Amino acid sequence: MQERTLIADLSSHTGENVSISGIVSVRRDQGKLVFFDFHDRSGTVQGVVLPAKDPAGEALMETAKDTRQEYSVRVEGMVNARPEKNIQADKQNGDIELEIKSISILSRAEEMPFDKDADDLTLEARFDYRPFTLRSQRDRDIFRVQATIVTAFRNALIERGFMDFQAPVLVGGDAEGGSAVFEIPDYYGKRAYLATSGQLYKQIMVGPFERVMTIAKTFRAEKSATTRHLSEITQLEFEMAFVETHEPVMDMLEEITRFISTEVADKHGDILTRLGTTPALLPEKAYPRFRLSEAQEIIEREFGGKAVGEPDLEPEHERQICEYAKREFGSDFVFITHFPNKKRAFYTYADPENPDSTLSFDLLFRGLEINSGSKRIHNYQDLVEKMHARGMDPEKFSFYLQAFKYGMPPHGGCSTGLERITMRMLELGNVKEASTFPRDMNRIDNLLSESAPED
Amino acid sequence: MQERTLIADLSSHTGENVSISGIVSVRRDQGKLVFFDFHDRSGTVQGVVLPAKDPAGEALMETAKDTRQEYSVRVEGMVNARPEKNIQADKQNGDIELEIKSISILSRAEEMPFDKDADDLTLEARFDYRPFTLRSQRDRDIFRVQATIVTAFRNALIERGFMDFQAPVLVGGDAEGGSAVFEIPDYYGKRAYLATSGQLYKQIMVGPFERVMTIAKTFRAEKSATTRHLSEITQLEFEMAFVETHEPVMDMLEEITRFISTEVADKHGDILTRLGTTPALLPEKAYPRFRLSEAQEIIEREFGGKAVGEPDLEPEHERQICEYAKREFGSDFVFITHFPNKKRAFYTYADPENPDSTLSFDLLFRGLEINSGSKRIHNYQDLVEKMHARGMDPEKFSFYLQAFKYGMPPHGGCSTGLERITMRMLELGNVKEASTFPRDMNRIDNLLSESAPED
Repeated sequence: MQERTLIADLSSHTGENVSISGIVSVRRDQGKLVFFDFHDRSGTVQGVVLPAKDPAGEALMETAKDTRQEYSVRVEGMVNARPEKNIQADKQNGDIELEIKSISILSRAEEMPFDKDADDLTLEARFDYRPFTLRSQRDRDIFRVQATIVTAFRNALIERGFMDFQAPVLVGGDAEGGSAVFEIPDYYGKRAYLATSGQLYKQIMVGPFERVMTIAKTFRAEKSATTRHLSEITQLEFEMAFVETHEPVMDMLEEITRFISTEVADKHGDILTRLGTTPALLPEKAYPRFRLSEAQEIIEREFGGKAVGEPDLEPEHERQICEYAKREFGSDFVFITHFPNKKRAFYTYADPENPDSTLSFDLLFRGLEINSGSKRIHNYQDLVEKMHARGMDPEKFSFYLQAFKYGMPPHGGCSTGLERITMRMLELGNVKEASTFPRDMNRIDNLLSESAPED
Repeated sequence: MQERTLIADLSSHTGENVSISGIVSVRRDQGKLVFFDFHDRSGTVQGVVLPAKDPAGEALMETAKDTRQEYSVRVEGMVNARPEKNIQADKQNGDIELEIKSISILSRAEEMPFDKDADDLTLEARFDYRPFTLRSQRDRDIFRVQATIVTAFRNALIERGFMDFQAPVLVGGDAEGGSAVFEIPDYYGKRAYLATSGQLYKQIMVGPFERVMTIAKTFRAEKSATTRHLSEITQLEFEMAFVETHEPVMDMLEEITRFISTEVADKHGDILTRLGTTPALLPEKAYPRFRLSEAQEIIEREFGGKAVGEPDLEPEHERQICEYAKREFGSDFVFITHFPNKKRAFYTYADPENPDSTLSFDLLFRGLEINSGSKRIHNYQDLVEKMHARGMDPEKFSFYLQAFKYGMPPHGGCSTGLERITMRMLELGNVKEASTFPRDMNRIDNLLSESAPED
């Protein structure tokens, strides 16, 4: 049997017999001629079965007419250059065509339930038929970009001396407080929870490793049915020691998100075009940085309404300040800093110039908060005091607190929602579209009303 | 303030004043002289405070005497070449010494609870004081190697056309059956479970992407207290389409584990030495491959005892066949293939030559199974029939089965336990040592008897 050639490599075999393995994207039966589009992981190519001239040709034509969309096949044939008038210059392999000599059907498919590439599919249909709709051009595009984002994040940080580790999913308590948490009431007869954040473990790891990152699953049991929430989230997190303020963390995050954006633009120009978006706009100078109070003043001045004095930005305000940053600074990214103490987690470092404020930041991207970060409290006594002030019991955090008791360098870090950065990078309307298998209030693969076993 | 120099870069600054940031590994107070070992993420260096000659020197000496182990400091000083007789050639920066001009204490530490680098620490002490003991040379070594394993795995697969994705942790049912599973009885009023495997999702992803990988958290509620089990595991998984048997999967896995082993050997020779082990032994030819029945005959012949006819290898048998493979083939890796149908998951492809057997394999490494894989059933009807034969209800797998109904290429794949490969790469005695924050029957960070909140 001839060795397999990847579809992307076909044009270098023009005039040769080859064997490809792939899946039928489309069959166009024109009676005496049958055309196919095949795809494999490397790309797509058109193939044709020519009119039968002999019994072998008739058998091939019969197989061709039996071969349908989503069938897996091995195809042998001759790579022909297309005549000038048939060349499709903007298409992969648009200058060649595979003249099919034989088709082996490796796997069949039933009739498709609907056109997976239709423009107007509902989200419900996409998710109900996820194993099928993931094959749509749209979904293959989204998750190719997501894989590039993850790899770019890891590589950029490794290059800067960060070490990755596996943050745990099972935790002994609700670490941060505030977020609704999923419970496992019977963990060998005791109670456990699903992590709402890798934060405390990331800080622990700073002690031995100074710069750490983790790609961590986190879980939120919030009763939230917005376009921005999932109950299972992938977080891209890093934490770094020897920072005096939150600013070196922002500098690092800016470098990383610039690298991610550039990688996506360089590798996936075709995908951005197909999805109707453009590369993230990166300013020549630094991303604009506004204190929360400053941003609120800008919002009131430029867009009207009430923002000054609020403890956080409303979703509408996030969109407005991003619009302003884009218009005035040519940036799709904007930092908001110095959130009030009461709105940030207990481990956030207070602003030495104003104890009601913190050395914290959010990074907004095209209208949405995708990252939160801060300098952290590193002094053991300060941390214990802060816990008391919040009504938390330091006893319950004795494991975490060890890291501080036995010496912790000053540090800071941040966490980016993978689904959120993917969503905004591709300007998708709903964060669930950026999760391969989205989990929310109503769905784990199937709608929960159908799938969850009852007692 | 002078810019920070990384400790690894100091020798290129000999004769210059520098500023370093780091943590005190050791202080040796010799009265008029105080020596320090400092470390940062890049390495270690010795510093010395010389006898005071003036009030500034006296203040410095006072700070030096106040500076203890695990304190974080910023130190300014002069990089001096050591006199010939003081050079320690086998040590990083063994040819230089930092003559300390100033010390700023950035963070203090309490008295250490014990010597974290003692040879005879119990595992219990290591885990009870994990945030502290992770700073030991041993643990820093283990997790540096683990990070290299993860990166090598990802890079080797990306280079071979695999795309990574995030497999879900929350699932709607116990997918594979057989493994004890953790339950979340209240997922928005419905029931959910923690994934015991990313397998079904990985297969779904083969349809759209042909070659996929995932670094997935999986969970086993088995009541098992061995040196080989954890309740939270990190799996390095890949799956590839267009394979006719399990053998191309084994070929791929061999390439990947060879690359991982070589990366660890190349980058971490010092760590392997410190941990008393050697690089994994890789044969010039392919890893030895034995059918289960063949391996059992070898075991009986070479080691005595009873093995032939059993459905699987006992732990003792795994050690014996590895000993044999090392002796006869110069290989620390050995494949065992063709496990009986009844011992493998429902999706395993039957051996066309013997339907009681399967196109399956385990990869053993230095006496332990670290990976399981197989060719998978790709035909929808075959899969449904197999489920019925196992007493499983295909209705409950309707989501997964869509992937097959609408066409699935022939495929196979496998899954490597990250903690297990790390454990054997470093010849650790217990897999828990290869987990940053190990979870087992008795422990989530703290012992569960202490930490779990009671009603």
